[in-house]
Formats: sequence, structure tokens, C-alpha cells
Amino acid sequence: MDGVGDSALNKAITPQDRLSVVLAEDMAAVNRLIRERMASEHAPRIPEVTAHLIEAGGKRLRPMLTLATARMMGYAGEDHVKLAATVEFIHTATLLHDDVVDESHRRRGRPTANLLWDNKSSVLVGDYLFARSFQLMVETGSLRVLDILADASATIAEGEVLQLTAAQDLRTDEGVYLQVIRGKTAALFAAATEVGGVIAGASAAEVAALREYGDALGIAFQIVDDILDYGGSDAIIGKNTGDDFRERKLTLPLIKAVAKASAEERAFWERVIERSDQRDGDLARAMVILQRHSAISGSRADAEAWVDRAKAALNNLPVHPLREILSELADYVVRRIS
Amino acid sequence: MDGVGDSALNKAITPQDRLSVVLAEDMAAVNRLIRERMASEHAPRIPEVTAHLIEAGGKRLRPMLTLATARMMGYAGEDHVKLAATVEFIHTATLLHDDVVDESHRRRGRPTANLLWDNKSSVLVGDYLFARSFQLMVETGSLRVLDILADASATIAEGEVLQLTAAQDLRTDEGVYLQVIRGKTAALFAAATEVGGVIAGASAAEVAALREYGDALGIAFQIVDDILDYGGSDAIIGKNTGDDFRERKLTLPLIKAVAKASAEERAFWERVIERSDQRDGDLARAMVILQRHSAISGSRADAEAWVDRAKAALNNLPVHPLREILSELADYVVRRIS
Repeated sequence: MDGVGDSALNKAITPQDRLSVVLAEDMAAVNRLIRERMASEHAPRIPEVTAHLIEAGGKRLRPMLTLATARMMGYAGEDHVKLAATVEFIHTATLLHDDVVDESHRRRGRPTANLLWDNKSSVLVGDYLFARSFQLMVETGSLRVLDILADASATIAEGEVLQLTAAQDLRTDEGVYLQVIRGKTAALFAAATEVGGVIAGASAAEVAALREYGDALGIAFQIVDDILDYGGSDAIIGKNTGDDFRERKLTLPLIKAVAKASAEERAFWERVIERSDQRDGDLARAMVILQRHSAISGSRADAEAWVDRAKAALNNLPVHPLREILSELADYVVRRIS
Repeated sequence: MDGVGDSALNKAITPQDRLSVVLAEDMAAVNRLIRERMASEHAPRIPEVTAHLIEAGGKRLRPMLTLATARMMGYAGEDHVKLAATVEFIHTATLLHDDVVDESHRRRGRPTANLLWDNKSSVLVGDYLFARSFQLMVETGSLRVLDILADASATIAEGEVLQLTAAQDLRTDEGVYLQVIRGKTAALFAAATEVGGVIAGASAAEVAALREYGDALGIAFQIVDDILDYGGSDAIIGKNTGDDFRERKLTLPLIKAVAKASAEERAFWERVIERSDQRDGDLARAMVILQRHSAISGSRADAEAWVDRAKAALNNLPVHPLREILSELADYVVRRIS
């Protein structure tokens, strides 16, 4: 760190990197626990598939939320490590199943498990990780934590099923979209931050604020992801621009554009989304239409409003250095766009 | 019942039917709870897929084991209904995922969900049912029950993954086979009977006996299923003779025949199982070889030994009419063969 002061360092790195630094010791314990629990005495396929995904350089954002909220609320025990590993296992299990459902071939810039092994392995190893996460949370002995994570698991699966039917249907509106992303993304963020407060013995109001922070952060995060799909680069998100368009997923930018469509635009959306008749140049045309109706900037404004809600929720919590980083993390989620 | 005495009735119907009669009220409550909890406010696809499978005339054997063991041990509360529904949801979720993994087209004599809808729906609705089962067991408030069912879930998934790699490999021996079927079948039977005892407040020795009964019954049940695959009829098991052979699954009859194979037979097994080169007449030839080495009768003897273990375990439990039916149920499992 020669010649670089702490404050300069703090500005140069992202809030997520700062969380990694502050929580380095806890995260090392989480990573040890993950490696230990993804082992299988009898089925070596399990750690192979899991390691491929878990060691692919994911940023461990969700487990860090659990560690950060638990520490911020003064937790001094060991169970936050178990819960952080639980959250990462649930996340990894959903990624394995998502890649089967979406027939994806790349994730985090690498071939997906369903491509390297097969769909069978992805389905069953995902099931195994769900079960392992369940064992870990039982070890905490907290029925309240189990209740929160059971509800989150059901909401995640429900959101994924809803997305199956909502995609490719131009009637999908912003209300349905919000339900889908609450399920597929925000439910786990909200559970991750809520259980951090619960094991720390935070008050009901504090737990509610933590949950609201996680929910709003998760919604903003997913809206930004969906925006990036129409304009990010490979380097940023590790997937190609236009994937959602090609898969005919009704995400927020498209929903906003469809709501304002002229008759001609409507015919275009019906052809490319509902009838799946996509031709060369259609993605470019879609992006021109999105621009015309300010669909990207409108989506970004929505994401910013959710970031504001996330930060407002934090104001109901005690002042703490981790609270500041979590606040900056919310801002950073939207900064990924520019 | 005109003209038919109770004892004549008892002989005419199977032990499973008798369980249904004795537990009719409890099972009605389980079925109500299942219908209530498979609903989804937002995603109508979920109850559609679930109903297809759950209302297809499955015999509800696993939930009846939970009800029967809880009642036998004197339980007078309501939670056995929740646990029975939990067990049926876990079973249904694994069926949905199994059919994706096996690329099955028929189950219980009807088209599978993956065929009627798609693999995506089967994967995600399976995940939803796992999550719902998890919510139900949390409602019982028993950490011990949660521990048992979390371990069972992990063992089930591990057994399924092990089967992926053990199938199609002639080195798979009886030890590996036992591990696979303990996972894919016996783990849920054992958990179903164990939790029945746990919520009833049975002693440690009684709970261990209940668990051993479920484990041995499940193993016998799966061995018989694997035997039926080489000789049952559609009417009995709802799938076609030789499915395992065509899918190159190393089940007990085949493992026993491979262990005694002549050089010529070994070459045959290598061709049809390992190299997947199957021709007309190969199934018939396989069945001749199984016969030659008494592989079916040997497997049947193994199943009978497990039935004896199941019945012996029951002897450690108090005398009760349900105990007698459970004992007859164990015998009945093997009688399905003849």
C-alpha cells in the first residue's frame, strides 16, 4: 500500500470490495465451511459440479450481506458463518437449476455445469445443495431463521415458475415483473439481511428495516441486471447483450416500451416476442424503440427509487461503519450501469 | 359389507388398503392440507403440475407410514398430518426431478409432467414443493424433526447423484447399489417412520426401531421394484419391463448376473450396458442370463431378508393393531413379485 492512504484506497475500490476487506476473516470461515459441506463421501460428481460454480469467482454478495448485517447488529457468535454458507448454497442451487431452465451455456464467463456435465447433474446437485443448506440452517437451532429461509425458498421457486409463464407474454406488466424479481432475486437478499439481524437479537423494528433494505437492494440489483442486458458489455456482466431479448423475456425496459408502443411497434413486439420470429437487425431495432420511449432511463429511475428505499431503511438502524458501506453498496448497484 | 365379515374383508384387501381404512380420517386431513399448500397465488402452473402428479392415484404409502407410526406410538396431536404432507411433498418433488433426469415419458400409467408441460416446469415446481415441505415441517416447531428430514433430503439427493455415475458402470457392486437405493428410496421411508415416533415422544430405542423398520422396508421395496422391472407387467408397476435394462441401470439382478458372468456373458454386458449397443432380442437374452445365474431369485431372497429385518424391528415396539398391519405390509412388499 506504499504511498496510498487508507482513504484513497477506500475511494478506489468498490463498496463490495470494502465489505470483503472488512469481513475477510468471516468470509474465510464461510469459504472453509462451503468447501467442507459441498463434499460428498459417496458421490464425487457433487463436489466437482459445485466447485465449478462456487469457485468461478462469484462475488459472494449474498453471504456478505448476512455477515455484514449480523456484525452490524453486534453479533459475536459463530452462527452467522453457517447462515452465510446457507445463503450461498441456496444461491448456487438456484443458479444450477436456472441454467437448466434457461438452457444457458455460459455463466460468469465460463461454460455452465449443464454444458460441462449434463442437465441431470445440474438438477440433482442443485437438490443436494438445497438439502445441505437446509442442514446448515437447522444447526443454528433457530426456528425463526428456519421460517424465514423456508419462506424465501418458496418465494424463489414461485418467482421462477411465474417467470416461465410471464416471459413471452406481452400482457406481463410492471406488477407481474416486480413479483417475478422479488421471487428470483430479492427474496434471497431480504432473507440474507433479515437472518443477520435475527441471530444478532435485533429488535422487531430493526429486523424489519434490515429485511426492507435487502428487498429493495435485491429489486434494484435485478432491474440493473435487466438494463445491462440491453447495454452492458461482456466484461461487466459476463453474458451477451440481448440474451433476454433472444429468450423473449419480458423485463422492465421491454415492458415499459410495450406499454407505450405504436401500432407498428406493437406488431414488431408481437412478432419477435410472442411469435418468436426474430431476424437479423431485430435486436438493434428493439434498442432504438427502447430509446424512443425512454425505457432504459425510466427503468434506471425505478432502480434509483429502490436504492433510495434501501438507504432509507438503513436510517432506522444504529450508526455503524458497516451501515455506511451497505449504504454505498446500494448506490453502487446502480452505478454499474454507467 | 353385506355378508362379508370383518375378517374376510381383512384378508381380501392388501395391508396398504387396510392402512388406508384405519387411517382414513387422518389421510383425509393430509389430502386437504396437500391441496391447500400446493396452491400458489401467483403461479397457476404450480397447482396444475402438482395436481397432475399428486392426484394420479399414487398410494400415499409414505405419508401413511408417518401417520401409522405416530398413531401407533400414541400420538394425539395434529402435527403428524403436517409431517405426512411434508413427506408426500418431498416424494412428489423427487418424482418430478427424477422424470427429468431419466427423460421418462410415463409415470403411474400417465404421461409425465415433463412431457405434458416441459422440463423447466418439472424442475421449478419440484423446487417449489421442496420449499413447501420445508415450510410445513418448520410449522411443527420440532428441531429434531427438521434435523431428520434435512438429513434425509441430503441422502436422497446424494443417492440420485451416485446413481448417475453408478449406472452404466459394470464395476457397480452390491455395496454401491445398497447406497444408491438407501438414498433414492429408503432414506424417505426411514425418515417417515422415524418422525412419526419422534413427534409421539417415543423412547430413543423405539425411535431407532421405527427408523430401522422404515429403512429395511424401503430397501426391500426398491429391490422388489428393480426385480419387477425384469418381470412385472404394466398393470402392476405402470412401466414397461426392461426399462432399467434399456436405460443401462445397474440394479441388483443385473449386478448379481455380472458377478457370475462367463467371458461371453461379460462381453454381452459390456456391449449392451457400457457401450450402449443394444439390438433386438438383447432384453430376452439378458433375461435368460439372469435366470441362468438365479439373479432374480437371489435378489428376491435379499428382499425377503430385508423384510425379516423390518419385521424384527417392529418386535421392539409395543403391541398395537397398527404394528400388525405394518408387519403384514412388509410381507406384502415382496408378495408383489409373484
